[in-house]
Amino acid sequence: MRATLMYGAGDVRVETTTDPSIQKPADAIVRIVRSCVCGSDLHPYHDLPEQEQGMPVGHEFLGVVEQAGTDVTTVKTGDLVVASFSYQDNTCEFCRAGVQTACAHPEFGFFSAAQAELIRVPLADGTLYKLPTGVDTALLPSLLTLADVYGTGYHAAKMAKVSAGDTVAVIGDGAVGLLAVLSAKQLGAERIILMGRHKVRTDLGVEFGATDVVAERGEEGIAKVVELTAGGAHKVLEAVGHRPAYDQAVGIVRGGGVISRVGVPQYEEAPVGFASLFGRNITLNGGPAPVRAYVDELLPNVLDGTVNPGKVFDRTVTLDDVPAAYRAMDDREVLKALVQF
Amino acid sequence: MRATLMYGAGDVRVETTTDPSIQKPADAIVRIVRSCVCGSDLHPYHDLPEQEQGMPVGHEFLGVVEQAGTDVTTVKTGDLVVASFSYQDNTCEFCRAGVQTACAHPEFGFFSAAQAELIRVPLADGTLYKLPTGVDTALLPSLLTLADVYGTGYHAAKMAKVSAGDTVAVIGDGAVGLLAVLSAKQLGAERIILMGRHKVRTDLGVEFGATDVVAERGEEGIAKVVELTAGGAHKVLEAVGHRPAYDQAVGIVRGGGVISRVGVPQYEEAPVGFASLFGRNITLNGGPAPVRAYVDELLPNVLDGTVNPGKVFDRTVTLDDVPAAYRAMDDREVLKALVQF
Repeated sequence: MRATLMYGAGDVRVETTTDPSIQKPADAIVRIVRSCVCGSDLHPYHDLPEQEQGMPVGHEFLGVVEQAGTDVTTVKTGDLVVASFSYQDNTCEFCRAGVQTACAHPEFGFFSAAQAELIRVPLADGTLYKLPTGVDTALLPSLLTLADVYGTGYHAAKMAKVSAGDTVAVIGDGAVGLLAVLSAKQLGAERIILMGRHKVRTDLGVEFGATDVVAERGEEGIAKVVELTAGGAHKVLEAVGHRPAYDQAVGIVRGGGVISRVGVPQYEEAPVGFASLFGRNITLNGGPAPVRAYVDELLPNVLDGTVNPGKVFDRTVTLDDVPAAYRAMDDREVLKALVQF
Repeated sequence: MRATLMYGAGDVRVETTTDPSIQKPADAIVRIVRSCVCGSDLHPYHDLPEQEQGMPVGHEFLGVVEQAGTDVTTVKTGDLVVASFSYQDNTCEFCRAGVQTACAHPEFGFFSAAQAELIRVPLADGTLYKLPTGVDTALLPSLLTLADVYGTGYHAAKMAKVSAGDTVAVIGDGAVGLLAVLSAKQLGAERIILMGRHKVRTDLGVEFGATDVVAERGEEGIAKVVELTAGGAHKVLEAVGHRPAYDQAVGIVRGGGVISRVGVPQYEEAPVGFASLFGRNITLNGGPAPVRAYVDELLPNVLDGTVNPGKVFDRTVTLDDVPAAYRAMDDREVLKALVQF
């Protein structure tokens, strides 16, 4: 099959590799119909050390089941399915509690080979979700967002317990930030302040429900949001992952409020003491989204067109164009690239 | 009046000072009947730089209203009252949301002169709570815990959303840790693991509801709790405030769980990234307890004897003996000293 491999920072290649095969009875093989490039794929694109053997990349996909292991009961050959970006049993204590990304199964993990024609899916029953549409639907881009970015934006809003009347600030105008806006809107937020600098993106944020856009960052951005909200936002959804975004979140959150993070932290230590979180009883939460937990909740509005999260895809490429898609996303020319097979 | 002043680390003196007086119409003057020494008073006792002018200390008291300013409506001269360790209006947005320690009133603050015969209480209506007992009740020690340590332990449990069936770990066998145990028990925790090394204290913890005691600390303590709980506690209540206690909390919390802190952090930065909080969707919260918010909830069980939080006082001293009480608490001879006037 053809697959995307990363050989180091800035070095993405599409090559012919061995087809994956069933290794355990709970596995399935999926022929990918749509995949995409994630903002988090840009982290290794920036800093992966050069390596002899290419690293498979990509963690978002939907496709058709090509083969199912003998233990797989919920999907079968020919089914159109969307996967979560993590694979889990969906039956353990943590999965049942809705924290699928803390699944206790020894095979639990995160996908990293989805920018390819075929993929092996461990724990297929807990990972693949059978879609009630055909492969010819125009909804494929929106359905693909259930694999990660929509569920991740929704996780940010859920963890922050966004509810009617809340003032919410979203940090980051990437796909996850924009879908956090959409999610906050769905959960009843009254005011949604989107912090982002790219007009094309923040315009989509406004379409998704943002009531205010703040382009300033750092101290200036903090001052602006504190002024707009007369003291800070109840809920801050942090969808970037860099340390300045954390500091910005601390600066704009209201006393007693919540900072919910879904941007993968590119730092380990950060302020949590009296001056930052403790003194004002701020809650810090979030993490890798258990997107599998949200599909049932999010799918109906996608199917009936109430929401159109697939709008985050502003370029469609073929597999061979994936290296160019990385470059375009890194240059901020493209918000999120859809890979069509 | 006689009052306690701290002149530097280890240097506590009781001296004659000027009586406080009403300065604003919302003030009251309270003649203190019971005060006490707090674990957090030991922080300046360890590291306060030497100073010419003594620093008034103490933030927990109950007493009798001596004089009420002209704007005070809820208490009057002669009333027996307990104060919260913060003073607040109890009417602003934050107070109404139950985060009195983030009160927006310009005079909001924390008491620091309560180991004395008299004290000025700003914002008396929002700060003093009229007790339905006489000054001769045997319940005074338990009623005094509503000023801080009981409400603070309860805040830890409330922020962690302790509920029926939870496995809770409490870090710290000081008064707040022990009352966090009591609070977790009241909120229905099934298993309460108390991490502490002082048998007299952990024995009281067991009386308050702890089902297990872990004396080990650091990696050893973490391993023990992880083993006891088959993977970690749902809720960790951190009642120490030193950085090793934070690290211990991160080590023993279960995926998807909560670390609720009420020990005043003696650090500003700590790990919050993928390896510590983010990767397992851990929630970090807590802060200075809005104890005023909990008096209505906690008082009935104190009055009817269902709980006896006053048991944390294991020595009673006079005001002149307060310096000796600091020494005894610092030497771990005494858990918490009650000051009787």
